[in-house]
Amino acid sequence: MATKDRPGEFALIARYFRPLAKDPGAFQLSDDAALLRPPSGKDLVITTDVVAEGVHFFKDDPPGSIAKKALRVNLSDLAGKGASPLGYLMTLALRDDWTERWVAGFAKGLAADQERYGIPLLGGDTSRAAGGTTITITAIGTLPRGTMVHRAGARPGDLVFVTGTIGDAALGLRLRLGTLQASARAARFLRDRYLHPDPRVALAPAIRRYATSAMDVSDGLVGDFAHICEESDVGGEVEAGLVPLSPAARAIIDAEPAALVTALTGGDDYEILATVRPRTARAFRNAAAKAGVDVTRIGRVTEGAGPPTVLDQTGEALSIGQASFDHFGRV
Amino acid sequence: MATKDRPGEFALIARYFRPLAKDPGAFQLSDDAALLRPPSGKDLVITTDVVAEGVHFFKDDPPGSIAKKALRVNLSDLAGKGASPLGYLMTLALRDDWTERWVAGFAKGLAADQERYGIPLLGGDTSRAAGGTTITITAIGTLPRGTMVHRAGARPGDLVFVTGTIGDAALGLRLRLGTLQASARAARFLRDRYLHPDPRVALAPAIRRYATSAMDVSDGLVGDFAHICEESDVGGEVEAGLVPLSPAARAIIDAEPAALVTALTGGDDYEILATVRPRTARAFRNAAAKAGVDVTRIGRVTEGAGPPTVLDQTGEALSIGQASFDHFGRV
Repeated sequence: MATKDRPGEFALIARYFRPLAKDPGAFQLSDDAALLRPPSGKDLVITTDVVAEGVHFFKDDPPGSIAKKALRVNLSDLAGKGASPLGYLMTLALRDDWTERWVAGFAKGLAADQERYGIPLLGGDTSRAAGGTTITITAIGTLPRGTMVHRAGARPGDLVFVTGTIGDAALGLRLRLGTLQASARAARFLRDRYLHPDPRVALAPAIRRYATSAMDVSDGLVGDFAHICEESDVGGEVEAGLVPLSPAARAIIDAEPAALVTALTGGDDYEILATVRPRTARAFRNAAAKAGVDVTRIGRVTEGAGPPTVLDQTGEALSIGQASFDHFGRV
Repeated sequence: MATKDRPGEFALIARYFRPLAKDPGAFQLSDDAALLRPPSGKDLVITTDVVAEGVHFFKDDPPGSIAKKALRVNLSDLAGKGASPLGYLMTLALRDDWTERWVAGFAKGLAADQERYGIPLLGGDTSRAAGGTTITITAIGTLPRGTMVHRAGARPGDLVFVTGTIGDAALGLRLRLGTLQASARAARFLRDRYLHPDPRVALAPAIRRYATSAMDVSDGLVGDFAHICEESDVGGEVEAGLVPLSPAARAIIDAEPAALVTALTGGDDYEILATVRPRTARAFRNAAAKAGVDVTRIGRVTEGAGPPTVLDQTGEALSIGQASFDHFGRV
């Protein structure tokens, strides 16, 4: 409800979200739906994720960071399927004591990411929420017809690659929760990785060209690789010693070796896990380098089935507990 | 988090939502995104709405009804643009004390509506929400290329039509809130109209063929007609005496004439408001009758601009307060 201090629903949309809706199919948010005229010869890939206060973000996180996270987790899903961003829709359900300043910061974060990743707002809905703030973004991507990359598709002998570094966000979350210690500098880096995932949008063309299977790592590396193995009906091996770690994560794990399990099974990496035929691995690496994305080989796909094995430095299988995160117990 | 009594995120999806995802592009919810291969020669229309506990529904509403409402408000948007349902994605953020029984009822409601309206689940996301439950549905419809109906497009001389009856949901909400009295039978009918909107999906082909402008009435008849006038740069007149009322609404307004304003300006009708050229009005009526949808002429589009006039039985302009509902103060 509009009050002296806060704009109403229509004013809020006009002031903060209409400027984000420059795509002609968005009709400046002045219609009831958006028009999507799919490019000819293309498939559309569509994904939706909710981020909820107290689960995916903290109430006092900067609103621009919350906006970016809400958008980026969806962009990461698209990239993991080989799709390039086309547009997004958003619902924003605001906690009772929302402020215009918060919404302004939120919209500013979206504007920056729209520019960064080349994706326009197509439509949305705002509401009050009786509980905490929740944001749902539905992102639409495109790719040439028939080139979507699936979880199924990995074949024995394929090499397993991952982008960036693994475990930073999960360690960053533990630092925020106070269940881990680190230097101020490492803590700053890791908390930022939790707050600001970096979806590998630039890698999408290489993924759809070279990956036999792929997905983004959102529920933990080991658990997500298990999903690929299950859907592809194969087994897998990961060499823990090959998994790329940031210097900050490395320092924590050196001091507390048990934190390796957090890194390998924690959620919110938003890196891409992909399987690639050995004969195209060099071409994949080159394409990734051209896209400016680091990729690291961490294991291989094997015959058989069941969850993948994680080998430690001595070649022994590491014992990993609950391999995959769900979002019913987070924060 | 999985507990002894409640399934975890993955089990919940497998048990209750996978059976709803029969479209081949949904990959049985076992991938990270859905594939949408648009029919050739068609445009896609896409819309998203959030329904939040304590705002759009009450905590103790039947979960199947909440599910239906979340889907139907989106189907209503599609119908108002002349689009036929193709598929939907959903995020479900569950309050902390959710039960499996609640989720089962929710999924059952969705299953019934998928059948009723011919729309499959394509993808989604589940999460815990620290506050109340919120549901976001993103619905995708199709129509022949270039035939989407907009809010803009009404022309002076057009006749104004509305489907069904107006005001039932708003009166039903006031009955639930205890700010209105009615007979037990009327109250049952009106509460049900609030809980179970009936999107006019069957009217979509007639809308795209005959309507110069259209939208679904979700924020109140007068306010939504004002949106059409504003976007079309025209004025308008509504004859209050022509606005179709259910017998239950009629009885309340007869007893308490001020309740007419609730009916004309309250939200949640989910009927379709459309403007039609006089020369095609008969054909529109016939097409609506064939589709099994009642349509009633309630006014006309005029030259000029500004909010539409509502005329009472004597031809005087009715004084209407805040003409349009926003969702920041609801329930």
